[in-house]
Amino acid sequence: MKPTYQPNAEFDLSLTRVVDVPRALVWRAWTDPDLLKPWFCPLPWKTIDCEIDLRPGGAFRTTMQSPEGERFHNEGCYLEITAGEKLVWTNTLLAGYRPSVIATTCGSDDVGFPFTAMVELADHPDGTRYTATVIHADTAGRDTHARMGFNDGWGKALDQLVAMIKAGS
Amino acid sequence: MKPTYQPNAEFDLSLTRVVDVPRALVWRAWTDPDLLKPWFCPLPWKTIDCEIDLRPGGAFRTTMQSPEGERFHNEGCYLEITAGEKLVWTNTLLAGYRPSVIATTCGSDDVGFPFTAMVELADHPDGTRYTATVIHADTAGRDTHARMGFNDGWGKALDQLVAMIKAGS
Repeated sequence: MKPTYQPNAEFDLSLTRVVDVPRALVWRAWTDPDLLKPWFCPLPWKTIDCEIDLRPGGAFRTTMQSPEGERFHNEGCYLEITAGEKLVWTNTLLAGYRPSVIATTCGSDDVGFPFTAMVELADHPDGTRYTATVIHADTAGRDTHARMGFNDGWGKALDQLVAMIKAGS
Repeated sequence: MKPTYQPNAEFDLSLTRVVDVPRALVWRAWTDPDLLKPWFCPLPWKTIDCEIDLRPGGAFRTTMQSPEGERFHNEGCYLEITAGEKLVWTNTLLAGYRPSVIATTCGSDDVGFPFTAMVELADHPDGTRYTATVIHADTAGRDTHARMGFNDGWGKALDQLVAMIKAGS
């Protein structure tokens, strides 16, 4: 089993859980837009649009909608893809590795902050070991993200992902 | 021959030249710290230190020194490496894909601006077709870089690279 990324406690946030669903289906839920939309935002928020260009330099775009109908557009760029095992993307770059104006000029505030995210999957006797890590530029970025509810948000999204897979099996 | 990246005239700066030295030696001059230092800065500036961790997510660090002895430290992260053909890195990320505080907070000014750089090499009847492209976040970044002398700087550095290879052969 490959070692997972070792988070830096000062700058990173990380979530590890064992989920009782097959690794291949977790991977599909992260890489097929139709399978990502149902679980990606903790309800009552919704992911109403998603584009996945699954290659280094390819776009990862989502549009989220609040219960009040407000829309938020997110765009990032895939950096590393190891099928079934590891997915890395960042919001500091857009498609084709172009630096993102939003992520590179607004610094760390409650609207946005630069990050690189990494999802790592490994086989486990009880299903799949799931590790999600978000790498920030500094402690301010980490703290902003923690205040926004990283653990709760990524945890609830994972619950929704697992429920979707179980409902489909 | 693989197509080279098609620059976006609004945001990118690009330099293409045919140089009469072998492609493999140009690649080595870009990827071996001892071979990069002699040519990387247009004289009388010097590159006094260089670290190259040649893998996606690996560090590309250089320290430049002005004729007056002022030192400038640059750190970036490799994104794509196709041996002998294509090298992509960005200053928006540091080693391990960590967002760079400098590049992501200072915006576009005369000190720094976020960029992704791409060097592409291809065989040519007269030697090597050399294409260097810098991808900026916006026209302000492109204009800042153009004012700083992109064409002249990258052109002179390439002259120094070619001269070094010829001196060694």
